[in-house]
Amino acid sequence: CSLPAYAQQVDETSLSAADTITNFSAYKRSLSFAGVLQTRYVASLTRHVDVNGKHYDPAADKGTHNSFLVKRARIMVKANINDHFSANILANFADFSGNPANKVLENAFIKYSLNKHFNVQAGQFRPFMGIEDIMPVDIIRTVDFSNQYYAFGKNGWQSFQVGLSVFGDINAQGNVRYYAGVYNGNNRNESTDDDDTKNLYARIEASPVNDLTVGVNAGTGSLGRSAIGNAYGIDASTRISLSRKWKLLLMGEYKSGTNFI
Amino acid sequence: CSLPAYAQQVDETSLSAADTITNFSAYKRSLSFAGVLQTRYVASLTRHVDVNGKHYDPAADKGTHNSFLVKRARIMVKANINDHFSANILANFADFSGNPANKVLENAFIKYSLNKHFNVQAGQFRPFMGIEDIMPVDIIRTVDFSNQYYAFGKNGWQSFQVGLSVFGDINAQGNVRYYAGVYNGNNRNESTDDDDTKNLYARIEASPVNDLTVGVNAGTGSLGRSAIGNAYGIDASTRISLSRKWKLLLMGEYKSGTNFI
Amino acid sequence: CSLPAYAQQVDETSLSAADTITNFSAYKRSLSFAGVLQTRYVASLTRHVDVNGKHYDPAADKGTHNSFLVKRARIMVKANINDHFSANILANFADFSGNPANKVLENAFIKYSLNKHFNVQAGQFRPFMGIEDIMPVDIIRTVDFSNQYYAFGKNGWQSFQVGLSVFGDINAQGNVRYYAGVYNGNNRNESTDDDDTKNLYARIEASPVNDLTVGVNAGTGSLGRSAIGNAYGIDASTRISLSRKWKLLLMGEYKSGTNFI
Repeated sequence: CSLPAYAQQVDETSLSAADTITNFSAYKRSLSFAGVLQTRYVASLTRHVDVNGKHYDPAADKGTHNSFLVKRARIMVKANINDHFSANILANFADFSGNPANKVLENAFIKYSLNKHFNVQAGQFRPFMGIEDIMPVDIIRTVDFSNQYYAFGKNGWQSFQVGLSVFGDINAQGNVRYYAGVYNGNNRNESTDDDDTKNLYARIEASPVNDLTVGVNAGTGSLGRSAIGNAYGIDASTRISLSRKWKLLLMGEYKSGTNFI
Repeated sequence: CSLPAYAQQVDETSLSAADTITNFSAYKRSLSFAGVLQTRYVASLTRHVDVNGKHYDPAADKGTHNSFLVKRARIMVKANINDHFSANILANFADFSGNPANKVLENAFIKYSLNKHFNVQAGQFRPFMGIEDIMPVDIIRTVDFSNQYYAFGKNGWQSFQVGLSVFGDINAQGNVRYYAGVYNGNNRNESTDDDDTKNLYARIEASPVNDLTVGVNAGTGSLGRSAIGNAYGIDASTRISLSRKWKLLLMGEYKSGTNFI
Repeated sequence: CSLPAYAQQVDETSLSAADTITNFSAYKRSLSFAGVLQTRYVASLTRHVDVNGKHYDPAADKGTHNSFLVKRARIMVKANINDHFSANILANFADFSGNPANKVLENAFIKYSLNKHFNVQAGQFRPFMGIEDIMPVDIIRTVDFSNQYYAFGKNGWQSFQVGLSVFGDINAQGNVRYYAGVYNGNNRNESTDDDDTKNLYARIEASPVNDLTVGVNAGTGSLGRSAIGNAYGIDASTRISLSRKWKLLLMGEYKSGTNFI
């Protein structure tokens, strides 16, 4: 009775043929799927304010005060091509609620990881500019992003951008990390950049003690043919254990940037 | 020689550690894929009637009398999160044959099953309003839906809607079933509901003898800012065994509803 | 200790129950995923020529001379339904960089393989018309298609079309192959054909010696209500081994066709 790959006793002391990688290009190849499905019921309890939080003129319009919504219907495919390269495609099918041009496709990037100190990521993804872009897209910590995040997104500073980033740990313990990159800075799914100026950014993040992380960001960029601007921000996150299985996460950010619109 | 999970002999009489579920949130987790690909050749054999069944003026237009078509190219992802929760996303890529706004995404719902008597489903899906919405979307029993189904769909009574439904078996044998729910009633992939009135519906289904099912539906609702209307219907299905591997399925429905358009 | 399907010793000399296929409709059923992610940085080094290779008037426009781009973000699902039937759906999410109508869905076809001499493929796919459509879509041999390919594609001769093809080996060795078919000839994701005339084509391909393939194509067709036209082409490919792991692939094609636009 023999069961290859499960029950064999590996000789740890010698270099047997079975221990040698014969095809490096497919080593650690795998495919994984993830998704986020966010469906909700929204009601406005304020007179003359609709479900989107907007005032309306009751003489001209009746407004919608409650609605069922599909906010996000995301499917993510992550392919580990080998132990160094991976590819990631993320699509949000809830974007078909309006004109899907320049929408739907969120992530489309290839990542190369040399080691924990040096990773390169190229394609369309959220550059690591500010606290809300550090978290993976398939984790939802808050019901919605902050208003400032949407404002920075409209200006091409944040959210999904087409470009290139490098990032990794600075020290051996991994509690000081860097992120830097360059991107078009006119948001996702554009046929080309709208100008020659690229956005440049850098971020330094440190966790001096457990459960506390502080970060500093800075960037320059433009949107369309408007003048060049800049943006910067500082942020802090802390996690407080209330009990063994109950934790409080606090995140704060101060940010300032040129408004191109 | 040992093979965990395959060849072990489980002690059925005692509560061993191996029989205890240690992580309820991932118990019975699985991912499955399904699809429907419907491609066809359509020809009109009637003079001055085109492939869509529409008359045209031969003086003004020449009409198209035959065509290859991709009618449906659906991919469905179903995720069983644990033994109670599942998520379902279905997209129809054949909808790119025209403007895909408010199309493409068909299912996007989360289902909670307490037991066979109580299930809740929330998000975008076809509410169980009438005989043609009871069947899963990945089963095609007829070449096309009935004309009345498309008419009820345009009015927001049927087809994919955003809302919430509860359903289950009424009795222990499971031959009497209920379905009820609430939905926006202005079709799929809308950014919000177009009014405050929601559609309400209920359906009772019974199989008094084998191979016979009868159902009764009723609902109220609206489309846009128009007046509130209602819809009701009765239906019956029967399956007749012609031989051991050859069966005839007959389905009939009478339905009436307010036409908002 | 027993391990079904892995470690059993099959009796090769008798027809045991385990060797008999009990469910032909699911025999050799499988699902596979593939993808192409092509992300790039394009710069124009020529004055007054933008990233798309187009001249612009410097008095009226400033032009974009460099840009990060997501050119292709393709996901392919291939389902082998049994040992004869397979289905293929391919979507390119990079098409959301503009209006996605009549885009995004690339492949949507069902293939029936009787044997290596006879295969039928129906739905939307690239008919085997010319050298650049013979290669599978998930293999990129060149950074881009040739200009003539895009010109033939605009006229409905090549690229993704809705129709039907038959193909296979002519002789037992498989070094002479045929392809023939019929398709709408007005490109992909149309709601119907735009006229009654279908495109017809045939291709003969032969490999007289190893590493050399020659092919001949011919077709007739139309686009819209324009007059009927025709297209033909000859092509040759050769592979020269420079060293054991380094090969040079040369491909050449002469093609002529009616320009309907």
